Amino acid sequence: MLARLREAVCEANLELAARGLVTYTWGNVSGIDRDSGTVAIKPSGVDYDALTAADIVLLDLLSGKVIWGDLRPSSDTPTHLALYRAFAGVGGVAHTHSPSATAFAQAGLPLPCLGTTHADHFHGDVPVTRMLTAEEVGGAYEANTGGVIVETFSGRDPLGVPAVLVAGHGPFTWGETAAAAVKNSVVLEAVAEMGLGTLQLRSSQRSIPQYLMERHYRRKHGPGAYYGQR
Amino acid sequence: MLARLREAVCEANLELAARGLVTYTWGNVSGIDRDSGTVAIKPSGVDYDALTAADIVLLDLLSGKVIWGDLRPSSDTPTHLALYRAFAGVGGVAHTHSPSATAFAQAGLPLPCLGTTHADHFHGDVPVTRMLTAEEVGGAYEANTGGVIVETFSGRDPLGVPAVLVAGHGPFTWGETAAAAVKNSVVLEAVAEMGLGTLQLRSSQRSIPQYLMERHYRRKHGPGAYYGQR
Amino acid sequence: MLARLREAVCEANLELAARGLVTYTWGNVSGIDRDSGTVAIKPSGVDYDALTAADIVLLDLLSGKVIWGDLRPSSDTPTHLALYRAFAGVGGVAHTHSPSATAFAQAGLPLPCLGTTHADHFHGDVPVTRMLTAEEVGGAYEANTGGVIVETFSGRDPLGVPAVLVAGHGPFTWGETAAAAVKNSVVLEAVAEMGLGTLQLRSSQRSIPQYLMERHYRRKHGPGAYYGQR
Amino acid sequence: MLARLREAVCEANLELAARGLVTYTWGNVSGIDRDSGTVAIKPSGVDYDALTAADIVLLDLLSGKVIWGDLRPSSDTPTHLALYRAFAGVGGVAHTHSPSATAFAQAGLPLPCLGTTHADHFHGDVPVTRMLTAEEVGGAYEANTGGVIVETFSGRDPLGVPAVLVAGHGPFTWGETAAAAVKNSVVLEAVAEMGLGTLQLRSSQRSIPQYLMERHYRRKHGPGAYYGQR
Repeated sequence: MLARLREAVCEANLELAARGLVTYTWGNVSGIDRDSGTVAIKPSGVDYDALTAADIVLLDLLSGKVIWGDLRPSSDTPTHLALYRAFAGVGGVAHTHSPSATAFAQAGLPLPCLGTTHADHFHGDVPVTRMLTAEEVGGAYEANTGGVIVETFSGRDPLGVPAVLVAGHGPFTWGETAAAAVKNSVVLEAVAEMGLGTLQLRSSQRSIPQYLMERHYRRKHGPGAYYGQR
Repeated sequence: MLARLREAVCEANLELAARGLVTYTWGNVSGIDRDSGTVAIKPSGVDYDALTAADIVLLDLLSGKVIWGDLRPSSDTPTHLALYRAFAGVGGVAHTHSPSATAFAQAGLPLPCLGTTHADHFHGDVPVTRMLTAEEVGGAYEANTGGVIVETFSGRDPLGVPAVLVAGHGPFTWGETAAAAVKNSVVLEAVAEMGLGTLQLRSSQRSIPQYLMERHYRRKHGPGAYYGQR
Repeated sequence: MLARLREAVCEANLELAARGLVTYTWGNVSGIDRDSGTVAIKPSGVDYDALTAADIVLLDLLSGKVIWGDLRPSSDTPTHLALYRAFAGVGGVAHTHSPSATAFAQAGLPLPCLGTTHADHFHGDVPVTRMLTAEEVGGAYEANTGGVIVETFSGRDPLGVPAVLVAGHGPFTWGETAAAAVKNSVVLEAVAEMGLGTLQLRSSQRSIPQYLMERHYRRKHGPGAYYGQR
Repeated sequence: MLARLREAVCEANLELAARGLVTYTWGNVSGIDRDSGTVAIKPSGVDYDALTAADIVLLDLLSGKVIWGDLRPSSDTPTHLALYRAFAGVGGVAHTHSPSATAFAQAGLPLPCLGTTHADHFHGDVPVTRMLTAEEVGGAYEANTGGVIVETFSGRDPLGVPAVLVAGHGPFTWGETAAAAVKNSVVLEAVAEMGLGTLQLRSSQRSIPQYLMERHYRRKHGPGAYYGQR
């Protein structure tokens, strides 16, 4: 059932590990088949070394119930589902505890667009969520984590900045596919590492000028893009 | 004699090296057989490359005397013994000089629970011991190191926070098995690295709210845990 | 056509990746045949894993037009061309987003000559450009990036300091060959990493004395050089 | 001629590279045969990949002249010779530009004994030299670098602290053999990395108490040592 989606999600999870972004089982990637409203996600707490496409769990987007697979889905599944429900164009979601991005999340700080590496991939600062309240954490915690991410993107285009820093937790990224979500996790960690160095050198540094951000973003995205091969 | 314990302890020591936590012979892991009161530990100053289960030394928990093996046990053995004697549920102990955790130990600072990565594994801040006195260092130094760790955990659950930073020295971790103790060393180094980045960005940052700590710890520990496979 | 140059440029691009300086397709290296006025450069957005000499694109230095190859050249090509036109002795140009050098570029700070490692390779501070204006970014952006680099080297010898930090962007390096340009990217990242540590320890640190800079530079460059084999 | 010494020096140079302490040809290791007064050292500017024992150059300690080998010795040879002449028990010398130790050297700061990792190997702070004068740099620069190191150790035991930070340059280490000198370079880089983290967390941190330093140093050195196998 949806073997191709499960394979793509399995590969995306393995790519996350191969890129050095996960320690033990910290991290998970999902993908969605929008036609059938089915989400494929990594099982909870399973080692990356042993992961195969047969372990990937399928859930129904609307009900959130498992519809295929013997294993329990990632405990972060309700966060993924909330993002798929709110962000129409998203086809994949990734979550890591990569060290530099998590440092910003733990400090409760957004990652400013400090340079063109950032601007090439993210259309503005990567925002940080507010801290969840005691009620939100005590209730449907993982779904509420998704809710606070969606709240943070109120009025913004989630595919323009396909990444967020959950305060006191770590990054979530997304994209048109599971592979794109993973790539955005790698890019986020790289620009967060550059950001740590930049802010060590000049703690008051803020974003590059708007006109430079726009130019770089438009080189790679949209109808006027001229980066890469056609 | 206790071949299975020696093999487990040998593997745990090799895992510590494979995870990149040791330089030369800095670090050691032990395990205990509670039924017979026997502790198995790495020999002192032996290269990890050459380590086999036949090199692991066995000691009597009560007397601290070697009861099997041709090599001298780790010079930190009395610290391990003190922890096994004081912490009833502990089945393995690990010691490293991993760089980020050691930075906190050398600065004499506890590692606050700065985020959910920490809260998933440690039930509160990782404490730092007081500095040992001249008398403690001049006497049974390694046993007294164990004593000051036990003192630091007075009134706390050592399996809730299975890690400590010995002031001016470095981390010790423990767990229900030698493998669990090693895993806690890896986790401690990862969260200490994130902590260095977090405190660089915001030096006043302290722990996440108690309710978020509790939720994350309980996702992975105790009767209500819902992380991983059953 | 110019197969040898294409091979050298391909190898230099692969070396940049092998040295760990590139993430995904971030970075590009070019080389020039001065006799025919032909520039060879990496195609835009092509994975390093798949790159062969047959993918390298050839352009005419004067017109900037592609004269050989099926792929589109790097989007940074006009920057490379501007450097070849202005800097007579340059035979290769490299561009990376390596993290430590990019931290200085994003902070808008030059890299002072903080020690002899720097002085062995760069004859003085590595300068940072001014930020490009909205007009420069809105127009022929990549050519103007080259222009602002050339402006930064007004009155300086570009082969004495074969590196620059483009403000808000990252480093460009060059040399007598494509391989030399890559080596200068590696050296720049190494000395920038040392610089981050140095300035963390002493934020007011500036360049070593002029006489020490000169001595080290002259050990490796010019008629009195006595480093290496003759 | 002295094939065994050349092999040991070649292996020590390769070990320096294998431990990740050298970029390109930055770094060199030598060893001495005290009976014949012969020093063996890496040739200048030769790649580590291609280095064999046949490339190692032999020099006479007293005259400093090459007595065997076709290649030119390391340009730092006069520094090595000065150390062998002044420090009687030294059998090997190593020089690197490893990033954390070089950060301290470039900041002109000694590396305090911030913890027991340091105390296990170095009997006190690793000192930093004064900056060489214009006259010293303009004259026999490399010999004068040795002279300023020797001056820094006036009244100290060079085998107690077998390492120094040359201001504005980088570390030199030594030991009873070439292999021991390399090991001290690795240890110095590791404790310097921990020191950068420690001082980031608490910039006022100074050495651990004298009694703790002594205890750790004596665990591994001298007649009362009880670390390792007999």
